[in-house]
Amino acid sequence: MPIKSFLPALLLAATSLSFARPGTALADEGMWTFDHLPKAQLEKAYHFKPSAEWISHVVQSSARLAAGCSASFVSGDGLVMTNHHCANACLSALSDKSHDYFSNGFFSSGVAQEPQCPGMELDRLDGITDVTAQVAQATQGKHDAAYTQAMQEVESRLTKECVHNDGAHWRCDFVTLYHGGQTALYRYRRYQDVRMVMAPEQNIAFFGGDPDNFNYPRYDIDLSMLRVFDNGKPVHTPFLQFDAKGPQAGDLVFTSGNPGRTQRSLPASALAFQRDISNPAIIAMLNSQEAALWQYSRESDAHRQEAENTLFHVQNSLKAYSGIEEALLTSGIVPKREQEDRALQGWIDADPARRKEYGQPYAKVDAAIAVQKQVFKNNLALTMLFHGIGENALVLVEGATQRAKPDAQRRAGFHEAELSEIEAELGARTPFHPELETMTLALGLTKMRQILGEDDSQVKLALGNATPDERAAELVKGTKLGDPAARLALWKGGQKAIAASTDPLIVLVRALHPSYEAMHKKLEDQVQNPMRQGQGDIARAQFARAKAENKLDALYPDATFSPRLSFGTVKGWNQDGKAIAPFTDFAGMYRHATGSDPFKLPQSWTEAKPRLTLSTHLDFVSTNDIVGGNSGSPVIDRAGHAVGLIFDGNLPSLAGDLYYDIETNRAVATDTSAIMAALRDVYHEDKLADELLHGHL
Amino acid sequence: MPIKSFLPALLLAATSLSFARPGTALADEGMWTFDHLPKAQLEKAYHFKPSAEWISHVVQSSARLAAGCSASFVSGDGLVMTNHHCANACLSALSDKSHDYFSNGFFSSGVAQEPQCPGMELDRLDGITDVTAQVAQATQGKHDAAYTQAMQEVESRLTKECVHNDGAHWRCDFVTLYHGGQTALYRYRRYQDVRMVMAPEQNIAFFGGDPDNFNYPRYDIDLSMLRVFDNGKPVHTPFLQFDAKGPQAGDLVFTSGNPGRTQRSLPASALAFQRDISNPAIIAMLNSQEAALWQYSRESDAHRQEAENTLFHVQNSLKAYSGIEEALLTSGIVPKREQEDRALQGWIDADPARRKEYGQPYAKVDAAIAVQKQVFKNNLALTMLFHGIGENALVLVEGATQRAKPDAQRRAGFHEAELSEIEAELGARTPFHPELETMTLALGLTKMRQILGEDDSQVKLALGNATPDERAAELVKGTKLGDPAARLALWKGGQKAIAASTDPLIVLVRALHPSYEAMHKKLEDQVQNPMRQGQGDIARAQFARAKAENKLDALYPDATFSPRLSFGTVKGWNQDGKAIAPFTDFAGMYRHATGSDPFKLPQSWTEAKPRLTLSTHLDFVSTNDIVGGNSGSPVIDRAGHAVGLIFDGNLPSLAGDLYYDIETNRAVATDTSAIMAALRDVYHEDKLADELLHGHL
Repeated sequence: MPIKSFLPALLLAATSLSFARPGTALADEGMWTFDHLPKAQLEKAYHFKPSAEWISHVVQSSARLAAGCSASFVSGDGLVMTNHHCANACLSALSDKSHDYFSNGFFSSGVAQEPQCPGMELDRLDGITDVTAQVAQATQGKHDAAYTQAMQEVESRLTKECVHNDGAHWRCDFVTLYHGGQTALYRYRRYQDVRMVMAPEQNIAFFGGDPDNFNYPRYDIDLSMLRVFDNGKPVHTPFLQFDAKGPQAGDLVFTSGNPGRTQRSLPASALAFQRDISNPAIIAMLNSQEAALWQYSRESDAHRQEAENTLFHVQNSLKAYSGIEEALLTSGIVPKREQEDRALQGWIDADPARRKEYGQPYAKVDAAIAVQKQVFKNNLALTMLFHGIGENALVLVEGATQRAKPDAQRRAGFHEAELSEIEAELGARTPFHPELETMTLALGLTKMRQILGEDDSQVKLALGNATPDERAAELVKGTKLGDPAARLALWKGGQKAIAASTDPLIVLVRALHPSYEAMHKKLEDQVQNPMRQGQGDIARAQFARAKAENKLDALYPDATFSPRLSFGTVKGWNQDGKAIAPFTDFAGMYRHATGSDPFKLPQSWTEAKPRLTLSTHLDFVSTNDIVGGNSGSPVIDRAGHAVGLIFDGNLPSLAGDLYYDIETNRAVATDTSAIMAALRDVYHEDKLADELLHGHL
Repeated sequence: MPIKSFLPALLLAATSLSFARPGTALADEGMWTFDHLPKAQLEKAYHFKPSAEWISHVVQSSARLAAGCSASFVSGDGLVMTNHHCANACLSALSDKSHDYFSNGFFSSGVAQEPQCPGMELDRLDGITDVTAQVAQATQGKHDAAYTQAMQEVESRLTKECVHNDGAHWRCDFVTLYHGGQTALYRYRRYQDVRMVMAPEQNIAFFGGDPDNFNYPRYDIDLSMLRVFDNGKPVHTPFLQFDAKGPQAGDLVFTSGNPGRTQRSLPASALAFQRDISNPAIIAMLNSQEAALWQYSRESDAHRQEAENTLFHVQNSLKAYSGIEEALLTSGIVPKREQEDRALQGWIDADPARRKEYGQPYAKVDAAIAVQKQVFKNNLALTMLFHGIGENALVLVEGATQRAKPDAQRRAGFHEAELSEIEAELGARTPFHPELETMTLALGLTKMRQILGEDDSQVKLALGNATPDERAAELVKGTKLGDPAARLALWKGGQKAIAASTDPLIVLVRALHPSYEAMHKKLEDQVQNPMRQGQGDIARAQFARAKAENKLDALYPDATFSPRLSFGTVKGWNQDGKAIAPFTDFAGMYRHATGSDPFKLPQSWTEAKPRLTLSTHLDFVSTNDIVGGNSGSPVIDRAGHAVGLIFDGNLPSLAGDLYYDIETNRAVATDTSAIMAALRDVYHEDKLADELLHGHL
């Protein structure tokens, strides 16, 4: 399922380029910012002209879940539609020994009874401001550490001004588009009181489980309904009218969501780094995590329940990374990109003015990749260690250090305006499972030693003379970080509290922090920033070239986990010479139900069979260009109504991070007609169904 | 450690080319057959001229363990030296709830008390016969299925004649060298009564464990001593005199062993298949097996003991495959090979007579690779399923089918002369652990479904409507194949017994057998044989070219798990600019002992410290060209004495499958001086030490 990948931001920072870069859109390709929609293309291909009202309505009805998903308002009383797998963490957190909401579903008995999802944040786009000029002015002529600091300062200043000292209600993200070709401030209305309304059973939300994940035909209702509250009351916002009929084959449909990250014109050397160095290592780690969790889950029902959510995320990431790696190895994309890179450098070299303006950007990128290669193993090892509860400890130690600096000098993620999100996460009553944490930490320590060798000074600090198992057991037994109150106390105590702490996890992270800090600085100064500059130069050259060739309208920026619109057609595809139809129906679902997990339907669905019209559309595919982060995006028709709910892409779409191919890439959605039938005929949730149809409680 | 890889022969048949091919040796490169030693090179580089007696003495003192290792006779009373990790399976099989010989070591109290190793076979080379002409005559003008059958017939006939109806004492292997450029019959004296004499604790044999595997400096005594019996008495053979002083830096040393498989001049398309398709998939499977076994081992001491041997083999293979994949991705070997391939094809194309003689061999190989790609997923899925006890079931069903055919039409491995090895394995009292087998089978079924999809007909046959866990539990609970007697009864009962069996594992394999058979036939006819022919043509062209260029003396065949001699120098290397010394000593070992696994020394060694000379050499490296299968090889000096015991290669040597680099490839051995000190000062095994020094009991 296309949610953002399960690897801490730390590693992403090193193995990927979290900056965007222009691509040239063909056919239905493109993830368009709402202030630069491909209106000419839409009119030409689909005879559709979105009005300013249509656009504004879609923007205001769309939402982002800060943890990595998309969503939409589907009633005027704060009702939000997203995926079941986007609410996994909430369902697990609300569960206890006698209630397994994740597996068995959740149905609130009324608005007053809807329970809050711990730590969940939802953001709704309020406005976009272009700040390209301010950024250019602030960073003019700066390089390396000076450039990092200038960027931090301007980001800190602009986001601070934008939030207006009201971080509880507003959030401003500094979004670098077209690799620095453009920088925008995205201002969101921030909601941190999100409650659980309804979720079906995991067995229908994720029918077919990991074997069917990223496959099609599919038979899932990957749905959850949330409600956003403000000041203790449901909020009132624009919303998408729910269309209970769903779309037809050939219909033009839109998705409004937050694709996490694409690298549609990453230089060949960076692609080769992923293919040859980082992806094989990441896939190996994910495979190990998956199999360890798999066996852990086999040990008891309690273990299964504890590990379920993490296992899902790991398996999802594993499929995603493996799909991308397969594409890198077999699609010929790397040599193709090499030619494109050479062509652009040739275009630059052909003119003295261009040579002066853009220089040798690919050489800059290559130099950054060379440093990334040096640092990669260390980065991977620390990433494996700072998993699970270790990640909390890192946030606390790093947070104390960063907050001791003036806002302008802090690392991204720790600016004043961003602290409330961290606090909400640290204070969330997410369940703490000592056995699972011990396993995670033992695996992390084992892998760390495997990667760096036992003579490495960090490994010696982390392990001492103990085995990974002994050390993990000792750390988990001794730590108080499983308790949200203890985490918040350390957070609030800042550097003094961290320095004085005897919590063994804090002591460990404190010891490792200097080398972590040195690595991070090297990554920022010698990898991310030169990469950003090199890619910025490339992006500006691409811009100039597109302009010269009159192709500027077809440029869209790489995904940046910010609101985007994509368009496409409800349409199947051909796979190994076999036509795959666009729709599945309830009849197909019942045919695939073997009675065994993950092909076992919940009892509610077995019983409801006689009441259902079996030809009702269940899932469908369309040519919309989506990637991870788009999970939970509404599928919207010309009228601006919700006709579906994105929850996956097909296997060929896994390469969507790198390129889009209209022949095979497909977005996978649940049909609104299936959602309506589920609410009425399976769950007897007529009140909720009525709210969707009428647009209010 | 360089033992043969842990993947069933089934998969190896598909993903690799188990045929040899000539390479051109430089410096110390080369694994030479004993009938074609590089005498001129040896004399030139080392001023050493091996006499016929020297050669014959080395051949007759060397041995091969049929399960995948090398060994040597070190006394005239059948005493054999090999690695601890080559005797793992025996130590585990001899253990019970109150004796963990694998972990705690084993010391026999006398010759009469030495227990037999279940299923262990040792072979000693008796003679080599060139049968190239017979093979050429039998296969003349044949292709595809006809070629397969002709090869099977000639192999069957020649090996049968060679064994002289005495398969209990003789074994004849059909060895294809230089990719069919040469075929030889290797006749071995076969010994199936091999007994355990001595093994140190696992913690000294494998000090540093998986983290240190393939690393250097190392501090291991990876030793076991066996004794070969015949007619209930120790055998008397030539043997290597044990040199208790060990070698010096710069010494010329030889290794006599059985390197398993190299692919030193595999065409680029086949390397690319490994790099892009098969290795990533195999590594993913091994990672999954490793982590599942890791977590299984954490559950209890009993589980740890059950899984230990398998976990070791999986981790060892994982490092080996990962190392090869890293080399394929980053060394530039594939484009380099592409150029070499193009050069040879160019040499062929340049002359009409050559064109007629060798044709387009690379196109032949490419066509075979294309078929291999089609079959690969199915092959991998079945390999995952036929693991553990599933492999026994496959051997029984497949064996019944094959034995029903005339010997000449049987598949390799099932010829009359080979059956006693299978019987010995089926009848071996190897321990059966239901929980571990259930996990292995559940993982196999899970991966099979993941690879092929739930709509695949084989997956439906294997799983029915059950989950992998339910099905695995049911199969393991219902099967009698854990009992050697039941296995032998089914084996002896042949097709009738297999057809009548209600054993659920036999029922399952019987159901899958037709599709397995079809896949296997496709692999043989459309992959292995065209590949063999294509590579044969390439090899003959290389021969002809080498001859024309007067370089014939420098050619050696790829490894084929048959006896080879390699030569080199005791010498360190430079790693990332740091000089690695050739020797380690006891002092270094004690410095690295943290007290925690796998850096925890056994009590015997902690106590012995005051009695040991700490500067005694422990391990050393040399430039000898070795790969998996060489484990347990003796290191031999000019005088023909044993000065070391090969047990590993360094990390760069993992690419030795594909190429040898004298700058970085190193063989890792235990020094005989350390072995002598261990026997006398740690274990007080003076009788054994005396046998080594005096050459008899």
